[in-house]
Amino acid sequence: MTFDDGFRAALRELLVWRRDVRRFRSDPLPPATLERLIELACLAPSVGLSQPWRFVIVDDPARRRAMLEEFKSCNEDALKSYTGGLAPRYAELKLAGMAEAPAQMAVFADPATGLGHGLGRRTMPEMAEYSVVAAVSMMWLAARAEGIGMGWVSILDPARVAGILEVPSAWRFIGYFCFGYPQAEYDAPELERAGWERRHEVENFILRR
Amino acid sequence: MTFDDGFRAALRELLVWRRDVRRFRSDPLPPATLERLIELACLAPSVGLSQPWRFVIVDDPARRRAMLEEFKSCNEDALKSYTGGLAPRYAELKLAGMAEAPAQMAVFADPATGLGHGLGRRTMPEMAEYSVVAAVSMMWLAARAEGIGMGWVSILDPARVAGILEVPSAWRFIGYFCFGYPQAEYDAPELERAGWERRHEVENFILRR
Repeated sequence: MTFDDGFRAALRELLVWRRDVRRFRSDPLPPATLERLIELACLAPSVGLSQPWRFVIVDDPARRRAMLEEFKSCNEDALKSYTGGLAPRYAELKLAGMAEAPAQMAVFADPATGLGHGLGRRTMPEMAEYSVVAAVSMMWLAARAEGIGMGWVSILDPARVAGILEVPSAWRFIGYFCFGYPQAEYDAPELERAGWERRHEVENFILRR
Repeated sequence: MTFDDGFRAALRELLVWRRDVRRFRSDPLPPATLERLIELACLAPSVGLSQPWRFVIVDDPARRRAMLEEFKSCNEDALKSYTGGLAPRYAELKLAGMAEAPAQMAVFADPATGLGHGLGRRTMPEMAEYSVVAAVSMMWLAARAEGIGMGWVSILDPARVAGILEVPSAWRFIGYFCFGYPQAEYDAPELERAGWERRHEVENFILRR
């Protein structure tokens, strides 16, 4: 299987136009969209082929409300942690689309899975979580290729999320994800457009040994 | 920016044919290949736009030898941890291409970076590491689209790796990555072909709440 220059150019555009979306239209996604995206996510690499990903589709209105309240609570705490000019700038940011996103999913890692017989996790047990992040990354690109926006919410308390969603407490919370059609498409991150942070030259992140 | 059915079908093929490669040809990659892949990796999402990725290109033969010895040591320890029928099966697996891969790179996360002003990391400090894994995931797909194989080695002691490569001890080691042209292309994981583990139906990993 080989890929040509045209595909590589389009893949680069996909990476450029993939965004963390927080402003969603309210119209629903086609049926079984999340299941289709999860299927693609499961093509991700996983340590020892352990497939530690656990996808929790959240449709129940009461649980969604509880998740939104949990986000608001954590976000208020975060706002209080900023001082000086950062506090009003933080307060103006929109950091989640949980009130509007038509599809929502929590993702966890099961570090105790027997799949893979522990291969590759002896010195780095965190490889289970990293495998799930790889799956999330695949899903993100697949969603964007369909014109679907995805947003990763991490301003949540992992233990409280596990309680709200009634999942095993040994699972590691990776993130809460919102899905929907974005109100607009951009090739620059929202935090950059809002002046919160800017992207630095790649050379700054490369060392040679 | 929109993507069409043809691109989506090719993207699916890319996900299907992406592999963790451990069997490399010895011919070198074109100049500046790693730098080009790193540039694409930096289009990944990062928490608060913190860009915590640190890419350490390893060319020095002495350091490469030290890394290979570190892998061998950890892999011998791992082999001793298996009992019964798993031990001989583990011993037969080829788990890294570090002796042959023409290009090699260690990747770290800097959890202390000031970029992003801590946004999104208050309740989940591990988001820094997860952002770096997202970058690695982007790089993996970009490499495969060029016909370049990539392999993730986690059978290493993070503290000893930091010592060998002389990077700040506060950095979190994400993985050691081998790059090169693969000896062969497959649409199934090496561990599945070797009978170590198999991929399970996606439905097993979905819950509803």
